[in-house]
Amino acid sequence: MAKKIDVSVGVLDRNNAIANEVKSDLTARGICLVNLLGSPGSGKTTLLEALVKGGYFKGGELVVIEGDLYTDQDALRMKALGVQSVQINTQGACHLEADSIKRALGALDLEGVKVVVIDNVGNLVCTSEFLLGEHIRVGVSSVTEGNDKPTKYPLMFQSADVVVLNKVDLVPYTNFDVDRFVQDVRGLNEMAPIVTCSALQGQGIGDLVEAMDVLG
Amino acid sequence: MAKKIDVSVGVLDRNNAIANEVKSDLTARGICLVNLLGSPGSGKTTLLEALVKGGYFKGGELVVIEGDLYTDQDALRMKALGVQSVQINTQGACHLEADSIKRALGALDLEGVKVVVIDNVGNLVCTSEFLLGEHIRVGVSSVTEGNDKPTKYPLMFQSADVVVLNKVDLVPYTNFDVDRFVQDVRGLNEMAPIVTCSALQGQGIGDLVEAMDVLG
Repeated sequence: MAKKIDVSVGVLDRNNAIANEVKSDLTARGICLVNLLGSPGSGKTTLLEALVKGGYFKGGELVVIEGDLYTDQDALRMKALGVQSVQINTQGACHLEADSIKRALGALDLEGVKVVVIDNVGNLVCTSEFLLGEHIRVGVSSVTEGNDKPTKYPLMFQSADVVVLNKVDLVPYTNFDVDRFVQDVRGLNEMAPIVTCSALQGQGIGDLVEAMDVLG
Repeated sequence: MAKKIDVSVGVLDRNNAIANEVKSDLTARGICLVNLLGSPGSGKTTLLEALVKGGYFKGGELVVIEGDLYTDQDALRMKALGVQSVQINTQGACHLEADSIKRALGALDLEGVKVVVIDNVGNLVCTSEFLLGEHIRVGVSSVTEGNDKPTKYPLMFQSADVVVLNKVDLVPYTNFDVDRFVQDVRGLNEMAPIVTCSALQGQGIGDLVEAMDVLG
């Protein structure tokens, strides 16, 4: 049998070293980095739109790093709301790594910025494995993905500082059980606030800002 | 700069060789292998339940290979309906590969079986890159994931033989545009039938069977 080399450990070690560098640099500048994770279509970008539309950030306080495989659709959504944003295209890769965040930060004007949000690639598995230098990790799951997501994809829920349950406006039209979701998340993560939102309807967005505590 | 070795090509070549072997073996036995892909919560397992409940398969004609990171929840859902199933746990990995399908097939009794369905890990990126020996690839997207999925995650839609739009019962409660979805998928894939379904309500399941043409 051929000797096996575990490439993944080396990749993660290198990523984590850059993530620590990113975090230290932003901490020194008084900027909070938020990593927003979730399945494709869980509503990450719509949550960001709701945060901006809700007036929780003064002009220029928020900037967004958009992660996507090929397109700049989400960066354009942010620009349409007057939010400075930069698009990272992974060229088909399933997650962001810390070195691309470091480069993206270099492309942004951070004067007067309080919060940088990374709108990660839609993926409930791979994105959770990579630290990006974030101070706060927000994991987004949506009602329409079903009740089994925390137990089936535990890492995002375990590693989140805040868990968002999005699309709660659709609860009446589904078989989703909010209490069971909260209980299952609590079984994986004793501490993280669990915030119920409807990004499209603008519900619960103030609670999310409070839970993230990024404007203190 | 250190010399780079592209590990991915070797991994895919090896995977594709095993996939070809799996496909040839099943073809010789008159068994159709279906690879069911989609985001977490797009409704893959619920579609399988609807196929069984709809009576489209005679007892024993269908078997299911369930892919999940750690749990056997989906295999238990199949067993509860009397369907032979085997669970593959990827131990955190984001997709299935052909060698695990080969092993799973070895663990199944294929006497009298017409169709084997692989219920892949919920992932709109990584799963599409790996051939598993399938005769038919069915890509599932759901209304509540939003209209931008085909353009943002093109590979699944490009590589599918059949595209399912699931959860159409929720269209009235969302801003989803079915015509635009069909147009965007058609821009990526000229040939694949596009079937609209509600797995939970049992709508469109006959159309899906017809599109897959697995019982001919």
